[in-house]
Amino acid sequence: MAATYEFGHAEGGIVAPAGFLASGVAAGIKKSGKRDVVVLAAKDGAVPAAAVFTTNTMAAAPVHLSRANVAGGTTRAVVANSGNANACTGEPGAADAAAMAAACADALGCDAGEVLVASTGVIGVALPMDAMLPGIADAVAALDDAAGDAAAEGIMTTDTFVKQTALTVSAGGTRYTVGGMAKGSGMIRPDMATMLAFVTTDAPLTSAACEQVVRAAVARTFNRITVDSDTSTNDMLLLMASGEAGGPALAPGDPACADAYEAVAAAVTEVCERLAKMIVRDGEGATKFVTITVTGAVSEADAERAAFSIADSPLVKTALFGADANWGRVVSAVGKSGAQVDPAKLDVTFAGIPTCVGGTGLAFDEDAAAAALAETDIDVAVDLHLGSGEATVWTCDLSYEYVRINGEYRS
Amino acid sequence: MAATYEFGHAEGGIVAPAGFLASGVAAGIKKSGKRDVVVLAAKDGAVPAAAVFTTNTMAAAPVHLSRANVAGGTTRAVVANSGNANACTGEPGAADAAAMAAACADALGCDAGEVLVASTGVIGVALPMDAMLPGIADAVAALDDAAGDAAAEGIMTTDTFVKQTALTVSAGGTRYTVGGMAKGSGMIRPDMATMLAFVTTDAPLTSAACEQVVRAAVARTFNRITVDSDTSTNDMLLLMASGEAGGPALAPGDPACADAYEAVAAAVTEVCERLAKMIVRDGEGATKFVTITVTGAVSEADAERAAFSIADSPLVKTALFGADANWGRVVSAVGKSGAQVDPAKLDVTFAGIPTCVGGTGLAFDEDAAAAALAETDIDVAVDLHLGSGEATVWTCDLSYEYVRINGEYRS
Repeated sequence: MAATYEFGHAEGGIVAPAGFLASGVAAGIKKSGKRDVVVLAAKDGAVPAAAVFTTNTMAAAPVHLSRANVAGGTTRAVVANSGNANACTGEPGAADAAAMAAACADALGCDAGEVLVASTGVIGVALPMDAMLPGIADAVAALDDAAGDAAAEGIMTTDTFVKQTALTVSAGGTRYTVGGMAKGSGMIRPDMATMLAFVTTDAPLTSAACEQVVRAAVARTFNRITVDSDTSTNDMLLLMASGEAGGPALAPGDPACADAYEAVAAAVTEVCERLAKMIVRDGEGATKFVTITVTGAVSEADAERAAFSIADSPLVKTALFGADANWGRVVSAVGKSGAQVDPAKLDVTFAGIPTCVGGTGLAFDEDAAAAALAETDIDVAVDLHLGSGEATVWTCDLSYEYVRINGEYRS
Repeated sequence: MAATYEFGHAEGGIVAPAGFLASGVAAGIKKSGKRDVVVLAAKDGAVPAAAVFTTNTMAAAPVHLSRANVAGGTTRAVVANSGNANACTGEPGAADAAAMAAACADALGCDAGEVLVASTGVIGVALPMDAMLPGIADAVAALDDAAGDAAAEGIMTTDTFVKQTALTVSAGGTRYTVGGMAKGSGMIRPDMATMLAFVTTDAPLTSAACEQVVRAAVARTFNRITVDSDTSTNDMLLLMASGEAGGPALAPGDPACADAYEAVAAAVTEVCERLAKMIVRDGEGATKFVTITVTGAVSEADAERAAFSIADSPLVKTALFGADANWGRVVSAVGKSGAQVDPAKLDVTFAGIPTCVGGTGLAFDEDAAAAALAETDIDVAVDLHLGSGEATVWTCDLSYEYVRINGEYRS
């Protein structure tokens, strides 16, 4: 990342920036009776927007629809539901996603092509459209500029807490606000995006700017987390820019607005990083928040490869759960990663304790290690001493509770 | 695989074929006091041999030594220890591996270059050589043509049962015997070999034949299993051929012995497959033995990619543990695998129950599914309907017990 900006505090999540309305209602999609239909809309009409989607080849019906509808670079609204992913639902599933967009557009008085759709929940079950369509009408009727909480609640599935954030950043005499919400807890190894995340700003970003900002932000935030190495069929991250902060349009590469552009891009990245970290902290069954940093790699890609190999290793994750300084598993994970390694140069620092230098294990104080590993936040650092490539990946441990949650998910 | 051969029953594991001696003694490497030093030796002198080793770039000292010593195509003996992997031990670790080979060679009266070394256990701790060297002398003194059990016990770490097998096969008027033993339970995603496996035969295979037979066998046996996706630093599979069955030398591509060559190759593959399946059945915390078959892929490599993606998915593995027919996770795993997929053509059969046809979920009888999933042996089949590529991978579920074992391993 380039310069660091002073971010101010803001409340309200996705409706913190001016120009956006949101809602979350209970339509009966979830068995629990909790909120499950959400609408996020630009107040007055379509605004510049960009999105990234899962690269899973079994992408769900709403992903195909939303990819097509956002391609023009502007979007009026997104309608989302939790409790059912509308994935592996064939032609009827595609028709259901289109009907969701049409119902939302009708209620908003816009074109169906201006509406995106996002679904999350169980795979392979038809959407209950008799509950969905009245739910969408209710959600549009409930749209409000203070309902960020209800919306963030409405996209949750196995999440145990609401994930939203907002901040302000000033540049060129204008104060911009960026807000965001996300859901996700399991099936988290985003590849171009995470489960569902929505980011709004009042900055006057052009469509091209939205596209560039969102891709840069996701690369080092949502694409740097993993809970369980499984990539969802429904991942989607959407950025919408209302422009209500005023000032000149922010376009990529325009020297007249370079400072403001960079500040807004940094703010969007910061919001994405906060949301991504919340997802890891709420990882299914997680008891630890683990920051894996690999430095000294021959390239950033190699550093990322090694960091993910550590982060996704079930043996590393269970050792972290068991508070066992079994750093040899970190070495093994690096060694299987495909990253370029010189075995005689590798250093490992486990929970702040040097455990391996130059590829050789060190004697270390087991009591100090046990104390360090009793903390919730754990750092694992590997230095390959080969080059300047580095990457940080955030993950969690693998606990009994992960096994329980996922052994019983459909029950 | 080509033709199928009639395999006869044999007892004795690695010493079932004539010409081999083995032993397993307790030298005090394991805290438990169980057998931990093993020698396998050809009775009269070096014999044709070939081995495959881990591709983990952090390969341990004994792997480097054994790779060099087997390169000439003949081997007299291998000395193995459990309880300590001699990995990440730097120059002293390399010296310790060499000292193990020298001690074994001294006791046998052969050259140190004729002895291989294999170690398995915890990473990053120096070998206790004061216990190891007398242990090796004891093990050589205990060599016996009926001690296969003791040897198979002596290589165990977290294994809960001894893994050995033997069989006979007849071709061209000669009866050949093949025996084998293996260890492994966690850190099992072999890549060119598994943890430790030793296969012996009395067939007069040439060195080149050993090499070719072992590579073909491993590709569809040890390289088709996964417990937890982690590749060890110490994997090694060794084949030794004493020739005591008699008959002409079996060389690759020699038409005079094609039938016998093929029969012995099939027998070695069968022994490897039996041992590989034992490792999966003894996977850390395993309650299910799962056979994943992918058919209709554009290539065998693509089928293998999709099958491993399913087999390594924590979400699929926990659903199997929970006896939950959550087949959507199989679809998601195929979709993230990188294998070529047409979402409208994919079929999934989960525990024998068709759950998805043409990419669309089917209604199915949940009671029948629950009954099928209560079995220990579960089949998951995916047909991509794109080509003739197919692959079968064996794996196990992910249970509370896996988490417990690996949270406490070093304790």
